[in-house]
Amino acid sequence: MKPTNKKSWRYRLHEIIYEADTPMGRLFDIVLLILILLSVVIVMLESVRSIDLEYHRLFYIIEWIITIFFTIEYIARIITVKKPRHYIFSFYGIIDFLSTIPLYLSFILVGSNYLLTVRALRLLRVFRILKITRYIGEGNKLKKALIESRPKIFIFIFAVLIVAIIAGTLMYLIEGEESGFKSIPVSVYWCIVTLTTVGFGDIAPVTPAGQFLATIIMILGYGVIAVPTGIVSAQYLRKASDDYVHVNTQSCRNCGAQRHRDDAKFCHKCGDELNPKSHVET
Amino acid sequence: MKPTNKKSWRYRLHEIIYEADTPMGRLFDIVLLILILLSVVIVMLESVRSIDLEYHRLFYIIEWIITIFFTIEYIARIITVKKPRHYIFSFYGIIDFLSTIPLYLSFILVGSNYLLTVRALRLLRVFRILKITRYIGEGNKLKKALIESRPKIFIFIFAVLIVAIIAGTLMYLIEGEESGFKSIPVSVYWCIVTLTTVGFGDIAPVTPAGQFLATIIMILGYGVIAVPTGIVSAQYLRKASDDYVHVNTQSCRNCGAQRHRDDAKFCHKCGDELNPKSHVET
Amino acid sequence: MKPTNKKSWRYRLHEIIYEADTPMGRLFDIVLLILILLSVVIVMLESVRSIDLEYHRLFYIIEWIITIFFTIEYIARIITVKKPRHYIFSFYGIIDFLSTIPLYLSFILVGSNYLLTVRALRLLRVFRILKITRYIGEGNKLKKALIESRPKIFIFIFAVLIVAIIAGTLMYLIEGEESGFKSIPVSVYWCIVTLTTVGFGDIAPVTPAGQFLATIIMILGYGVIAVPTGIVSAQYLRKASDDYVHVNTQSCRNCGAQRHRDDAKFCHKCGDELNPKSHVET
Amino acid sequence: MKPTNKKSWRYRLHEIIYEADTPMGRLFDIVLLILILLSVVIVMLESVRSIDLEYHRLFYIIEWIITIFFTIEYIARIITVKKPRHYIFSFYGIIDFLSTIPLYLSFILVGSNYLLTVRALRLLRVFRILKITRYIGEGNKLKKALIESRPKIFIFIFAVLIVAIIAGTLMYLIEGEESGFKSIPVSVYWCIVTLTTVGFGDIAPVTPAGQFLATIIMILGYGVIAVPTGIVSAQYLRKASDDYVHVNTQSCRNCGAQRHRDDAKFCHKCGDELNPKSHVET
Repeated sequence: MKPTNKKSWRYRLHEIIYEADTPMGRLFDIVLLILILLSVVIVMLESVRSIDLEYHRLFYIIEWIITIFFTIEYIARIITVKKPRHYIFSFYGIIDFLSTIPLYLSFILVGSNYLLTVRALRLLRVFRILKITRYIGEGNKLKKALIESRPKIFIFIFAVLIVAIIAGTLMYLIEGEESGFKSIPVSVYWCIVTLTTVGFGDIAPVTPAGQFLATIIMILGYGVIAVPTGIVSAQYLRKASDDYVHVNTQSCRNCGAQRHRDDAKFCHKCGDELNPKSHVET
Repeated sequence: MKPTNKKSWRYRLHEIIYEADTPMGRLFDIVLLILILLSVVIVMLESVRSIDLEYHRLFYIIEWIITIFFTIEYIARIITVKKPRHYIFSFYGIIDFLSTIPLYLSFILVGSNYLLTVRALRLLRVFRILKITRYIGEGNKLKKALIESRPKIFIFIFAVLIVAIIAGTLMYLIEGEESGFKSIPVSVYWCIVTLTTVGFGDIAPVTPAGQFLATIIMILGYGVIAVPTGIVSAQYLRKASDDYVHVNTQSCRNCGAQRHRDDAKFCHKCGDELNPKSHVET
Repeated sequence: MKPTNKKSWRYRLHEIIYEADTPMGRLFDIVLLILILLSVVIVMLESVRSIDLEYHRLFYIIEWIITIFFTIEYIARIITVKKPRHYIFSFYGIIDFLSTIPLYLSFILVGSNYLLTVRALRLLRVFRILKITRYIGEGNKLKKALIESRPKIFIFIFAVLIVAIIAGTLMYLIEGEESGFKSIPVSVYWCIVTLTTVGFGDIAPVTPAGQFLATIIMILGYGVIAVPTGIVSAQYLRKASDDYVHVNTQSCRNCGAQRHRDDAKFCHKCGDELNPKSHVET
Repeated sequence: MKPTNKKSWRYRLHEIIYEADTPMGRLFDIVLLILILLSVVIVMLESVRSIDLEYHRLFYIIEWIITIFFTIEYIARIITVKKPRHYIFSFYGIIDFLSTIPLYLSFILVGSNYLLTVRALRLLRVFRILKITRYIGEGNKLKKALIESRPKIFIFIFAVLIVAIIAGTLMYLIEGEESGFKSIPVSVYWCIVTLTTVGFGDIAPVTPAGQFLATIIMILGYGVIAVPTGIVSAQYLRKASDDYVHVNTQSCRNCGAQRHRDDAKFCHKCGDELNPKSHVET
């Protein structure tokens, strides 16, 4: 992203909108963050009838200001970027578009108030702005740990689902429709509610046999909740100990191999001495 | 399982049904997987009255197709295997049989609709097909960690049960039948619901003394949930660090230094070559 | 516990009752275990009205058999032990006494049916018998990890209680008596139900402010549940890694010190060389 | 805090009030602790109508005694400290003031009974007294682990909130107001109740689509509860292994080897003595 003329307005606008190193860029990000959060708060408050009746007009005006700002920003993002098509169809490009359009659409599709709640998706834009904060490092670590645990978590969720389907079918047979276990899907839903230890209690077994099976499911869930925790803990710790054990950042001068043991004196790959100082001493 | 004539139809059928290395074998597994899942979905949807009323005929036809396919598959599995009896009485043999029979049985035992839900057990067949996927490695690790933690988990569940029975008896004495603690088994059931932090709320203490005891049970459960998690975490991590640190057992012939990196060719301490093979080459 | 005459009936009785190395001792323990479990099952079933109505007479007879067996056993324990007073006032001595007495007391104190539920305490006797099983090792490890984590768990429960009392008082002020938060103790009870993620739902906030505070309490509880888990995990792992780090089993030839670092060449206590081989080389 | 005249009454009073090394100081702390706990118990019991009706007069008298004691203590704290302003506006200074004032205020603001519950904040004073106990070490460790995990926990709570807002908006659209999802804030509240596995059950999805989304939220919450646990576990363990391996910072004067065992007297690498004191002895 290196435009020919460094002083061009396009370049400067790009710097403001996409980056956060300049004071203007930082200001832009903060304004955007405030507008996003304000917008989400308005969406939430509008759904509360009593508040909406009183402040409907105010909300409408703020929403217009936000929409106009987002419209200008969206256009600016398109014209300052080198490959507009690439941006438009990117994840954040689509989110930006969906964040801008609801108010306009509400004119075309009359009565589509539900559409306005799409604005809650604006919250996803927050993640882009967060890139500039110091928390992004932690966020990335978290993300990495989750991604690396993915096959483990996948197999785990798969096992939970199979247990839930089989136990749910059994509960449907045992409890029947009188106790709220109206169908197998509802029973499976109840099983997941129980296995995850959420336990709403809108449906609960009433027969002794059903309560006995529920007990087994709960103890299973109790033991099983340990598994994802263990997985993520291990992942986190392995990473931590990785950082720790390989703290040595020296690279062999001969072959370039890295990640030597802390107390290594010779390259584990080519056998060359690692420490230049000891060379001097020799 | 190496039949004499490699080209025999039995050998080829065995390869298709039991293995997944050939394109046909892979196709067979995918078709089987789809039919199993379809069958389970139908069992679930049939239990929803409104859906069943509308699509009963369609479900019936699909069920017949699946049953016929399973029947053929079951017979094929018997005739292609060398020791049919061994297969028939194996875990998967019984599951296969139970997966095939419900529809036939529903003719003999009229009105036995509950029997049809046995088809949910077909889900267990999925595990056999999953053997071919890359997730089986993770699944095995999970299984191994669980098996190795078994005595720990057993003693833990045992302790939970004893706590639940004693606390349940106390709750029965304190709360009595008016609050829903109708009998000691129900009280014990409530204790397990509480200890596992599920908390349905269909039964809840109402007297101050009962609520006080419930508080103690909950804090106990809170502290105690840490135990299986700690067990599985430790098991996982020990295994992980095992893989990581110990994998290389070689010792330097010159200086005796140990715990070399997996791919180390030279001693990290004295720089001597580690691999005896390379000695021969020298 | 070594009586002078090895063949005395007292000595042999002691061996049968207190130990489990002889076939008779093992048989005695198994009979006792069955009677204890049977007794607890009967206590539980007696509290279920419909079952009690039908089998009351049978339960009564079995209870008499168990009580007589326990009486004989209790007397035998006293006469075979060298210091009867020491046994009588020990933890298990009191449990044994409480296990034996309920039926006799029910004659003296007419109508004291609640007293009979004291028999549930008989379950504690199971722990004594379990001493002979292979699970006792795991149980001891678990117990040790819990004991070593005690100050950590104590401070943690203390912090939870203070949070619960302050948050409970706030909820009482915010929600008031109409929402079920009848008094501060009830509010504190609700807070603990929420912090421990049990969530019965018999009491739940209905005002926006109350729901907001509940949200904060829940997220707090969510973050806080990590703490005891982390503590026990760490305790478990430290023990595990303890075993691991000190894998070096050499002992100093000079002073006998053990548990040297893996790569230690000299005793950390007396400075003597550890490796005999290097002596030869010197 | 070293006043010129060691025998001055101010100095001695300061020693008694702020420190706990002398018998008087220890006694003062214990009396204060008892009064604080007594006061909190009274606040709690007063809110229980039936108890309050009976013992109102007794509570009132005890409250006056406590308030007078606290008043004297507050004045004593101000006059014995060198910088009174610094104390008055410190955290504990404000807590002390708020602990003293409620009863006086209840005269000025008639009917302000709610104000009296502010006394529950007195509980925070307990933390100051606990400084003298042996548990403070564990408490500090816990605090430190939490503080060091702060950015991780912050990003985690942030992610949970975003998930809750988006899922809550979806649930509001799917379930609508008939099922109890009255507004988006209420839906978000429900989402947090579910994600944290509390699950009150006062609001629960009733439509199949809503139950399906709830299932996804629950499994998400199930997987996600592992994250803070993993974070704290890792933090704890890193610290633990830190304590264990690093605790000794001495370096061998002869060969410079580090990371000696805590109780090592000689270098594990060259055998040279580690302790300078023993050098003097030599």
